[in-house]
Amino acid sequence: MFGFSKSWNPRGLHAYVTGGSTGLGLALAKILVLKGAHVSIVARNQEKLDKAIEELELLRVDAAQKVLAYSFSLTSAETSTTALEAVCAPFDGKAPDAVFACAGASRPAFFVEMEAQHLEQGMRDGYWVQAWTAWAAAKMMAKQQKKGGKIVLVSSTLGYMSFLGWASYSPAKHALRGLADTLQSELMLYGISVHIYFPPTMHTPGYEEENKTKPQIVKEIEDADEGLTAEQAAKALYRGVESGQAHITGDLITSLFRASTRGASPKNNWILDGVYDAIAYVATPIWRSSVDKKVVSHRMEHHDYLAKKGFFT
Amino acid sequence: MFGFSKSWNPRGLHAYVTGGSTGLGLALAKILVLKGAHVSIVARNQEKLDKAIEELELLRVDAAQKVLAYSFSLTSAETSTTALEAVCAPFDGKAPDAVFACAGASRPAFFVEMEAQHLEQGMRDGYWVQAWTAWAAAKMMAKQQKKGGKIVLVSSTLGYMSFLGWASYSPAKHALRGLADTLQSELMLYGISVHIYFPPTMHTPGYEEENKTKPQIVKEIEDADEGLTAEQAAKALYRGVESGQAHITGDLITSLFRASTRGASPKNNWILDGVYDAIAYVATPIWRSSVDKKVVSHRMEHHDYLAKKGFFT
Repeated sequence: MFGFSKSWNPRGLHAYVTGGSTGLGLALAKILVLKGAHVSIVARNQEKLDKAIEELELLRVDAAQKVLAYSFSLTSAETSTTALEAVCAPFDGKAPDAVFACAGASRPAFFVEMEAQHLEQGMRDGYWVQAWTAWAAAKMMAKQQKKGGKIVLVSSTLGYMSFLGWASYSPAKHALRGLADTLQSELMLYGISVHIYFPPTMHTPGYEEENKTKPQIVKEIEDADEGLTAEQAAKALYRGVESGQAHITGDLITSLFRASTRGASPKNNWILDGVYDAIAYVATPIWRSSVDKKVVSHRMEHHDYLAKKGFFT
Repeated sequence: MFGFSKSWNPRGLHAYVTGGSTGLGLALAKILVLKGAHVSIVARNQEKLDKAIEELELLRVDAAQKVLAYSFSLTSAETSTTALEAVCAPFDGKAPDAVFACAGASRPAFFVEMEAQHLEQGMRDGYWVQAWTAWAAAKMMAKQQKKGGKIVLVSSTLGYMSFLGWASYSPAKHALRGLADTLQSELMLYGISVHIYFPPTMHTPGYEEENKTKPQIVKEIEDADEGLTAEQAAKALYRGVESGQAHITGDLITSLFRASTRGASPKNNWILDGVYDAIAYVATPIWRSSVDKKVVSHRMEHHDYLAKKGFFT
């Protein structure tokens, strides 16, 4: 907390990165390879995995480094367990030293236009895709009494707050916070540390995908958030884990929300977090009231939009 | 916010209460009947519903009041929609004026001992059982352009923070916060207000059920929370809705967490919330460190417990 503790060094350790073929996951995998870790990535698309491995191979710093890729869908307990076992096989079945659950996707839309499947998919792609990996990894680490193991989840600024359009995503990202805060306490029983990262908008393939369904009014509200590149976001995530932070943020806006929703989460820095909190104390009500105004002034246009789609008939 | 706005009066309105046959839901239904509202309750167990209706009938203040009960399980989108339609039938299919989603259940346990089904059930009984009702109600209210409609969700103190034992429950209760914060913004488009209540331990049949699986160490940490009766909790919930609060708390400990995890949520009272926040600023790190100490000192005992159950073999 005050910079006295030794920072985490992944050299020679085994890091497992889900969602490791693109975006944040791939950018993080690159950092880990450069730091000398053995890195296993899992994602669904074999073509993207092949391409990712090519890129990662160029960065290896040691001939003995294992840099491996596996194709699995991680949306069920069974496949997440199978994926973890596959990833551990080249290490004699030993649990990874660090698990980074970076997989996820979002599909913003208006709540009253969402089908039940859309909401269920939101929870699957925003929560379960990481929760199952955390569950399989925690069991394996605890069984093997792997002290010093790390489990890292990836939430979002929308895990700290929310606004219109995010009814299928923000609940999932809040749920990840609840899971991380539970496990941060519970896995102390086994000497396993738990971290959770709250990235803002990231300019990744996933972001382009999400923009396809994003209502215009949501885009307007998000204008305040400049976002990070996948590389910037991965660097922030890595630094937070390196220095042992429970809640990790890498941009000013999310840091303000982190400080102002701290609750019982451990602080990262008593002085800086206090400053953030003081700024947020004034800034968030102003931000909120500007969002509320935008939403209310959008009423007529939204009504016409729904009417044209036959919503009221 | 400053006591100038007219408080909500349910007299002659239709209130729909899920989980209305016992605990918080029943206690709230009683208040609503006493206030002169038409009240529909839904729960699974017909026997409990019959008993609840008997009690509610004694409290009616007007011969024209409709006080009705329906047996439905609310864990799917389909059944939640069907339940809502059944509840609205005696009102010519008009949407309820207020929907109180009080259904829910929890089963604390150690994460590494949880089966996949346990985690899934936690999300179903803690999140979906309310989310589907909110979804069906929001669609119906928006379609009928029911301005002034209210949707009320029930989270928990564990929707603001968490600690060991709650990995199947706290994520669901955090998810409800994410949903409420989204909808509080989005349903402004339709003039529908959204509220969420964060009760502490409530001395209800559900609490007795949850204690059956609760690990001893979790009980010890919870000792600080004296809890509320269902009647006290329902009164706090009702008062919060009456005065239009977005986040409602009815006990000191949860109010401290509310103030210190405020983020972008609207404040209830600028002065009192500031005082709570100042207290929480000092108190939560102390509380947290005491919980962490308890968890760490429980390590050996927990290891023996797992070993006896054959966890390591």
